[in-house]
Amino acid sequence: MLNDQAQEKSLNIQFLLTGTELMVGDIVDTNSVMLAQSLKDHGAEVARKVTLGDDFDALVAEIEYISRQADVLLINGGLGPTADDLTAEALAKVIGQPLEEHAEALVHLELWCERRGFRLSGANRKQVILPKGITLVPNPIGSAVGFSVVHNDCHIICTPGVPIELKQMWQQEILPHLITQLPKVDKVKTVKLHTFGMGESAIQNLFDQHLADWPKDIEVGYRAASPLVDLKLTTRSEQAEKHLPEWQAKIESLLGAHVLKVSTIDSTTAEILEQPFTVAQTLVELLRQKEQTITMAESCTGGLIASNVTRIPGSSAVFEAGYVTYSNRIKTELLQVKTETLERHGAVSEAVVLEMAQGALDTSGSDWAVSVSGIAGPGGGSDDKPVGTVWICWGNNDRLKTQCLVYPTNRLNFQRFIANVGLDLIRRELLEIKEVPSYFSRTGK
Amino acid sequence: MLNDQAQEKSLNIQFLLTGTELMVGDIVDTNSVMLAQSLKDHGAEVARKVTLGDDFDALVAEIEYISRQADVLLINGGLGPTADDLTAEALAKVIGQPLEEHAEALVHLELWCERRGFRLSGANRKQVILPKGITLVPNPIGSAVGFSVVHNDCHIICTPGVPIELKQMWQQEILPHLITQLPKVDKVKTVKLHTFGMGESAIQNLFDQHLADWPKDIEVGYRAASPLVDLKLTTRSEQAEKHLPEWQAKIESLLGAHVLKVSTIDSTTAEILEQPFTVAQTLVELLRQKEQTITMAESCTGGLIASNVTRIPGSSAVFEAGYVTYSNRIKTELLQVKTETLERHGAVSEAVVLEMAQGALDTSGSDWAVSVSGIAGPGGGSDDKPVGTVWICWGNNDRLKTQCLVYPTNRLNFQRFIANVGLDLIRRELLEIKEVPSYFSRTGK
Repeated sequence: MLNDQAQEKSLNIQFLLTGTELMVGDIVDTNSVMLAQSLKDHGAEVARKVTLGDDFDALVAEIEYISRQADVLLINGGLGPTADDLTAEALAKVIGQPLEEHAEALVHLELWCERRGFRLSGANRKQVILPKGITLVPNPIGSAVGFSVVHNDCHIICTPGVPIELKQMWQQEILPHLITQLPKVDKVKTVKLHTFGMGESAIQNLFDQHLADWPKDIEVGYRAASPLVDLKLTTRSEQAEKHLPEWQAKIESLLGAHVLKVSTIDSTTAEILEQPFTVAQTLVELLRQKEQTITMAESCTGGLIASNVTRIPGSSAVFEAGYVTYSNRIKTELLQVKTETLERHGAVSEAVVLEMAQGALDTSGSDWAVSVSGIAGPGGGSDDKPVGTVWICWGNNDRLKTQCLVYPTNRLNFQRFIANVGLDLIRRELLEIKEVPSYFSRTGK
Repeated sequence: MLNDQAQEKSLNIQFLLTGTELMVGDIVDTNSVMLAQSLKDHGAEVARKVTLGDDFDALVAEIEYISRQADVLLINGGLGPTADDLTAEALAKVIGQPLEEHAEALVHLELWCERRGFRLSGANRKQVILPKGITLVPNPIGSAVGFSVVHNDCHIICTPGVPIELKQMWQQEILPHLITQLPKVDKVKTVKLHTFGMGESAIQNLFDQHLADWPKDIEVGYRAASPLVDLKLTTRSEQAEKHLPEWQAKIESLLGAHVLKVSTIDSTTAEILEQPFTVAQTLVELLRQKEQTITMAESCTGGLIASNVTRIPGSSAVFEAGYVTYSNRIKTELLQVKTETLERHGAVSEAVVLEMAQGALDTSGSDWAVSVSGIAGPGGGSDDKPVGTVWICWGNNDRLKTQCLVYPTNRLNFQRFIANVGLDLIRRELLEIKEVPSYFSRTGK
């Protein structure tokens, strides 16, 4: 669909997203984010992004306007079977061509219906009425085909709005072609450090304080995947790539055990990550390798630690039992926490989380345990133990360790952060890491 | 900042979102979604939305271009203290005015620093260098003030990119002014039905099959808040509003107990919902009213049911204990599920979920219990029990009910849906609903 010559100057790539549901806020645009990330991983940028409702005249005007500025215009959405789907019609008007039934698209649609045992409906048939002269872009999974055309020297590519269809079309059809158009494409490399336990600004401080001579040709970018932060290092030349390992090693050594995983994307890979990377993923993997198991006794996180573990496929190999012990009575009955310990120290205390963790180890027979008891808020705080206070205990039958943190935020963020801290502390034990995690400084003092 | 006369024709409102982090996909734009929803609730629409990176020339060109088409241009982002923040500079160029230190903004910034015990830094001071002749828009919480100006008959309003600051500025300063500009603003009314258990297409089928004579002046919209669906009915005239209750009653009666809650927004309210409404919210509220408690015995949902409940503030009044019993051994030890039941029927069976629920009731002393055992995938399926198969049991000591569902999707969607089903079934018991939920038809047959 695009010429196969590599260009020296960078491409002006623009997106046009269509659909009233995007304009009125009924859905959040994740499609263009996915494509922009993928482009960035290959050293390209999106110059401009326009979002429009299902308005025929506005679409026609915008396509024409963008085609005069851009080298590539990717239109997303408006290919469906309903009257609101106007992309093909608008493009036909712009390029001055009639709409006609596209034979190849019809074959695709018939096969698609047949495989599902559907009858081809009139509404579906609308999806193969396309502007004359376009080139098809196959849709590996959906009923709506994509298509492209050159107008005003701009490659216009129309794609379906359904994210999974767009993604497959992008990876299998569009990106491989686009890559050949990007300048110096074999020189772009991105390294991602998936980190937990330091915020963006804390990481930025490391650069400012210790790496003031950081080279300009290694770009530093952040991607918050709350509560994780992905740090991205990108180079765009052979020379920059040569000293990337040296500088990567410097920042990795400053980040220490806050780095969960490092992944490398070079511009020949057309890979988009499915889901953000999580602490639980690393932990489940480590436990599987060691053939060990984990259990958790949760008060303030209320099942979220267990849920983080069990959402990982294959977690049943490392997890048998989890305890959500919200009330004092249940802490005693289920985990043998002593009534006198609760009375003397209160539920949010070192003594109680120690007994909770030991109780979980004893009752479940697991190798590792983590327990938490805290005040998630908004109510329940006091001067002595304000909202955000939490005691955490982690370890095995040889040794249990404890830590008190104060992390005042809203209830959900508190639960998410503390659940990840719990899993991270076990990860650090498994890797025998001696270094103190950054979040231990969050003691509210 | 805007004239106080109400206009008869609808306003052309456009957004300009700035920031390289938006362009490269490092963050997802939720700001414009929030504003668009709020505008829609007040009968207004966003005509066009443009997103640009931190590129001075592109910003200048875009502001000028939009100001010629739009009545209102809301610019979001680029007000921060760093060199990348270019909005004030670009606007100054567009309106042909110099940048100068703004006295009122400086007072705001000094107070802001004082309250936090910060010293006013040079970087911060950049935030009060604004184009001459602008009108301030107060920022109730952040350091960066907003500002507005009229250019080419277009009201240009510049706002901070930090979501919580934008939201407060929008609700307290911008929306109240905009509302006075919106046509026939006192006639717009939106009713939201928060539903669980039917998909968008299933709800649309109800309209198609039973309400073919649905009036054109009651707009129907959907907002997926997965796995919930919010159905929105909007009227834009007094006449339409008059027959809204009658038609609302018709669709409510067809939806039956799938409706969790109804909320009404009229155009004089400037309210934006914090978090999507959840099944757990309704359930916790109901249980609190009845002073009853719930427990759960979870296998395939792995703690997510407990987590859904405990993320609701005040849930400790209705929840004491949750059991995540992943392995057969733990089902037996913790919940007294009989070994012979497991051997005879398998873990994913009616007999096992019945014993799990009874065990959870006995052990916790709760009033209500829900238990689930299923195959979340991707592995573990068989011909007899494919991935997505789940047995659910719910009830109290008087009566336990069971149901088998087949819901094949990815692991995370499966867990989310089934966790909500579990809570919804208890809600239906508490409300003594006789009607069969729509999702009971998902039996894989």
